[in-house]
Amino acid sequence: MVDLTQVMDDEVFMAFASYATIILSKMMLMSTATAFYRLTRKVFANPEDCVAFGKGENAKKYLRTDDRVERVRRAHLNDLENIIPFLGIGLLYSLSGPDPSTAILHFRLFVGARIYHTIAYLTPLPQPNRALSFFVGYGVTLSMAYRLLKSKLYL
Amino acid sequence: MVDLTQVMDDEVFMAFASYATIILSKMMLMSTATAFYRLTRKVFANPEDCVAFGKGENAKKYLRTDDRVERVRRAHLNDLENIIPFLGIGLLYSLSGPDPSTAILHFRLFVGARIYHTIAYLTPLPQPNRALSFFVGYGVTLSMAYRLLKSKLYL
Amino acid sequence: MVDLTQVMDDEVFMAFASYATIILSKMMLMSTATAFYRLTRKVFANPEDCVAFGKGENAKKYLRTDDRVERVRRAHLNDLENIIPFLGIGLLYSLSGPDPSTAILHFRLFVGARIYHTIAYLTPLPQPNRALSFFVGYGVTLSMAYRLLKSKLYL
Repeated sequence: MVDLTQVMDDEVFMAFASYATIILSKMMLMSTATAFYRLTRKVFANPEDCVAFGKGENAKKYLRTDDRVERVRRAHLNDLENIIPFLGIGLLYSLSGPDPSTAILHFRLFVGARIYHTIAYLTPLPQPNRALSFFVGYGVTLSMAYRLLKSKLYL
Repeated sequence: MVDLTQVMDDEVFMAFASYATIILSKMMLMSTATAFYRLTRKVFANPEDCVAFGKGENAKKYLRTDDRVERVRRAHLNDLENIIPFLGIGLLYSLSGPDPSTAILHFRLFVGARIYHTIAYLTPLPQPNRALSFFVGYGVTLSMAYRLLKSKLYL
Repeated sequence: MVDLTQVMDDEVFMAFASYATIILSKMMLMSTATAFYRLTRKVFANPEDCVAFGKGENAKKYLRTDDRVERVRRAHLNDLENIIPFLGIGLLYSLSGPDPSTAILHFRLFVGARIYHTIAYLTPLPQPNRALSFFVGYGVTLSMAYRLLKSKLYL
């Protein structure tokens, strides 16, 4: 009987578990940010969400878009597009027996870059702040993919 | 040689595998729902999809949006934003040796909340049905994240 | 102490790791394609991205949508909706001790179908090219879900 808790005794896997949980929790906060701006600016996508703010036609005026809400949603979609590959490739890379310090450097760089990306997107900071943080995260994931396929390619 | 099938003998991991597969399959049904409404209402996003319904300009009128299609797509995007963190954090939480009954309660609450969220979104049910089911699922994932980081944080 | 690198000695898991990494890397290229079309056609979603191309009102004209950019974004969202379930269900299916040749056939079919789906979407090829490749990928993931739940259901 495999004692799964031993899996968590592996240094690289524990580090990946911590950094992946932190960045996924950060991604979840984007939903809260969207909800916050929708409620404070009365900007909704669904008629049933407007009912608390008015009746019939009077409520319909809150069915609209808002620059701030759309900016948070774009940042959230960019998170999905970049954190999911990190999650999948990072998990498999962690299980491929990488050098611990190299692997943990990858995880730290990615999480730092993605937190800065969110700050740059939501402030917003002038370019190339956001673009650079995007490419750092992007590069980290591709680097893990390359190392994984180089050592364990099996088609 | 690690016999991977033993991994699946762990009660918590087996439960996570079942609940994750069920909720991911439910998420996949959202694509079917979108395709169903697109075809039955002749609402397409791509010109090549309209060709079966008419030629040239006559086909272009089907390049349009529809409230029902957009509602399913919003529900599907909300699924992505919430089921992915559950998938990543839940997998790592399952491997951290949690108390089985606590862990399985988390999985059941999440899957129940997300199925109800889809029902509330697509019926649609009046608020706060959808909001409450969202926050139950959201809270479950954050609870797993907190427990995982509290026991296995490694930066 | 579990030696995690042994996990990677399992033929099915190694194959899944390779195919998942390849298809996630392919998905990441969609971000590059979006950035390429945005830059070459000067089509931006954020005001700070336009500053490099003009000042004040003169820059605002680049805040617009473009059919080509929107097509790549739709293909990318379709990737998210289908590659994520493959990633989650495929990982758990790989750990459930499936028959190696059956499992590897599933992985190859999915990756082939999704690469063809992207080609059909971005060329674009006439229907039913894209629809068929969608349903092959969709069917593979549901088949893995069915086999996993049939052998390891634990609620």
